[in-house]
Amino acid sequence: MTKKLQRVLLCLPLLCGTPAFAERNVILIIGDGMDDQQITIARNYLVGAAGRLTLDNMPLRSVSQVLTVAESGETVYVADSANSATSMATGEITSRGRIATSAGSDRPLTTIAELAHAAGFRTGLVATASITDATPASFVAHISARYCENPEAVYGAKISSITLPDCPQYARPGGGPGSISEQIAASDIDVLLGGGSKHFAIPIEGSDQTVLELARDNGYQVVESSEALAAAPVGEKLLGLFSPSHLPVRLQGENRRKAEQPRASWANQVSAYIGSVELPEPMVCEENPAFAAVPSLKEMTEAALRHLQNERGFFLMIESASVDKQAHERKPCGSIGEVAQLNEALDSALAFAERHPDTLIMVTADHAQAAQMIPTDSLFAAFGIPVYSPGMIARIETPEGAVMTVNYATNSFAYEEHTGGNVPLFANSVGLGRVATMVTQPEIFEITRDYLFEERPLETAGAENP
Amino acid sequence: MTKKLQRVLLCLPLLCGTPAFAERNVILIIGDGMDDQQITIARNYLVGAAGRLTLDNMPLRSVSQVLTVAESGETVYVADSANSATSMATGEITSRGRIATSAGSDRPLTTIAELAHAAGFRTGLVATASITDATPASFVAHISARYCENPEAVYGAKISSITLPDCPQYARPGGGPGSISEQIAASDIDVLLGGGSKHFAIPIEGSDQTVLELARDNGYQVVESSEALAAAPVGEKLLGLFSPSHLPVRLQGENRRKAEQPRASWANQVSAYIGSVELPEPMVCEENPAFAAVPSLKEMTEAALRHLQNERGFFLMIESASVDKQAHERKPCGSIGEVAQLNEALDSALAFAERHPDTLIMVTADHAQAAQMIPTDSLFAAFGIPVYSPGMIARIETPEGAVMTVNYATNSFAYEEHTGGNVPLFANSVGLGRVATMVTQPEIFEITRDYLFEERPLETAGAENP
Repeated sequence: MTKKLQRVLLCLPLLCGTPAFAERNVILIIGDGMDDQQITIARNYLVGAAGRLTLDNMPLRSVSQVLTVAESGETVYVADSANSATSMATGEITSRGRIATSAGSDRPLTTIAELAHAAGFRTGLVATASITDATPASFVAHISARYCENPEAVYGAKISSITLPDCPQYARPGGGPGSISEQIAASDIDVLLGGGSKHFAIPIEGSDQTVLELARDNGYQVVESSEALAAAPVGEKLLGLFSPSHLPVRLQGENRRKAEQPRASWANQVSAYIGSVELPEPMVCEENPAFAAVPSLKEMTEAALRHLQNERGFFLMIESASVDKQAHERKPCGSIGEVAQLNEALDSALAFAERHPDTLIMVTADHAQAAQMIPTDSLFAAFGIPVYSPGMIARIETPEGAVMTVNYATNSFAYEEHTGGNVPLFANSVGLGRVATMVTQPEIFEITRDYLFEERPLETAGAENP
Repeated sequence: MTKKLQRVLLCLPLLCGTPAFAERNVILIIGDGMDDQQITIARNYLVGAAGRLTLDNMPLRSVSQVLTVAESGETVYVADSANSATSMATGEITSRGRIATSAGSDRPLTTIAELAHAAGFRTGLVATASITDATPASFVAHISARYCENPEAVYGAKISSITLPDCPQYARPGGGPGSISEQIAASDIDVLLGGGSKHFAIPIEGSDQTVLELARDNGYQVVESSEALAAAPVGEKLLGLFSPSHLPVRLQGENRRKAEQPRASWANQVSAYIGSVELPEPMVCEENPAFAAVPSLKEMTEAALRHLQNERGFFLMIESASVDKQAHERKPCGSIGEVAQLNEALDSALAFAERHPDTLIMVTADHAQAAQMIPTDSLFAAFGIPVYSPGMIARIETPEGAVMTVNYATNSFAYEEHTGGNVPLFANSVGLGRVATMVTQPEIFEITRDYLFEERPLETAGAENP
């Protein structure tokens, strides 16, 4: 008797329309750099200091311990998105810049998406970044350096005149698996939605084919607009590339302003106790016109859920990437808009879980970030001394009629650094009893794996989804 | 039939030794400025990046929303310890600098300690700060300005040459309730342990009596050493003043070093892309010799529990004050030692709760703080450009053999600012079902009140503890 027949016979007396094995889904939502300061900044702007975002109302709250090592194995206290996503994707702690490979030995580490696919689950990755960026890449590719995003970049991508770490040993001509975009194009992931078309437009070395053509050969239907995404038939693998690089963000500062340096008077530069300081004028956040041209994270999430839903279940990672990217560039409005996007994607995920109760939803960040809210009126204002942050600040007029001051001061360089705190972790009620009040990032991998595989062992699954 | 006789008759058949009404205790532990960055910095140093502090293992994790208003009622995004402690002590949102008084109208706000005392519970306040400092004061005193700590300061305390906000309308000669120390001396709090003896040594205006003599007249036994604290007989009100001001902290930087400014070379000052930067040398943390002269927070906690334990129950607030104070001064070792002290006090509280199961323990912070952990090796180190924080940094050699870099960059002044994020909130298992995954600070007051008064209405309590 086949498994299918067994199921039909079992089902008939109960008049059940569902499969004998309940569907199991995991939706992991990552706000890149979305620490408690970022969430509070966004909450203050979006719903007011006393308001609540959807994620604030999640029934389970935990924190995740971000763990990083050097290539030598020594402890490192501040992560990047590559090693922290690798922790969540593979359960292994690695070094900064690595995409699902081990520190020191450079071994490929099996990802949860690979495990899930092998067991018959569908898999999806959605990001507001380039789909080749560190966070989504860590769930599908294996490479020693995160900027090896396309066939040219394996020999060292350039930012301005600076050459980034390379990984020529991964190039295809030498028998390697290729760059991140090549590995993605050749992958088994069912749904891939984000930016990064420029990394797919490049010819594969030693071939006339571009990376995008490789993806099509591998069964991907390719969409490049909201309309095409909405119309894409379910049942085929789906690759959505909606922008050459990262997707444009929703909000920006008035006249594209970002955080700016307070200007101390000449006298104040001589002594901090005299003179005066001119602070940047307050500003509002406004819609970024470019945002209208791309699907929102919510649209991509809903499309992914439509394509992934099946009786076996799925693993879906959704990244709101630019909480981090905008903070690196000292653009608080940009980060706020990205928390709003994450929050709306979470609304869609929760609505899906209402209809599909065996859906574990976790929301977390990969690392803490530079932005800090500091007092608009200094705690020391009564002292009559010009007091200001040594970094850059933005003063934002919030809809509730107050001024919020956001400080960026980790770095003298063009980009801010990450910071080293715990990050928040939320779960829906399915997480109760599964997600402890504090977990390590590798445990997020374990929780996902254990939930997906709990009641449906690998061999059964294989038989059901041949 | 008296209540006591009723109880004896009810008890006899069950051979019970406990009162008919179970004891109810609340222990509220506040780490001043102890946000997730501070906890992570302390964890890294004390138990390693992958280690766990006692508070990490608490069965309930939540966050608290810090809410502040201006005198006008407008939203303010960054709190001080006075208004945030007032929120937790009284359930009311107020303005910075206020001690259990209302913004704008300057009305006294009833504190949880006052409510608990009126209902027959014992009450205690323990702090590593001066007992007149904002956090403990907000549970016992009512005054418009936090620095009105003694009979002279109501006319304006001075820090260096700066006069702080005064509150002459609170002075006793005009019929006011007096300064914070006078209000404490005249209070009903059963156990008060901390620093601040200098605020009690000052004569009360228009009297030959010092504030300390007022306290003695009001029934306080006064202790000033660990030995006297250990020997103090239970049953009398207890005032322990172990230092003229705040208690010395446990840890300090090697050779008293704190965070220091990176020194850019001349060339780097001309262009951020050239030249070099000299970072402060790494340092270890060491014991502060002065700490040995005062009781630890754990000793004070255990003494308070000994004095407060009774069949009716108690409310006890314990503050580890100098997580914040040391961060203001850019002394990461000091903050780390204070988190260690809090963690040990929590161990004692948990041990007490094992013997007294109807004890709700909550651990939280009052506001977020300036310290940020930044990468020891910049994320942009590969770019070959001198990169450093525009603020002050300390590089700390941790016992696990790595270097942790802590950044302070909210302010150009001698003291750092607070920051505006959510703060962590933990509870023991008694908190399950009582403490939501996110609460406002005023809700901490409500949770405490509801737990104390849940099964023992006010009128019954009054009859039992006449």
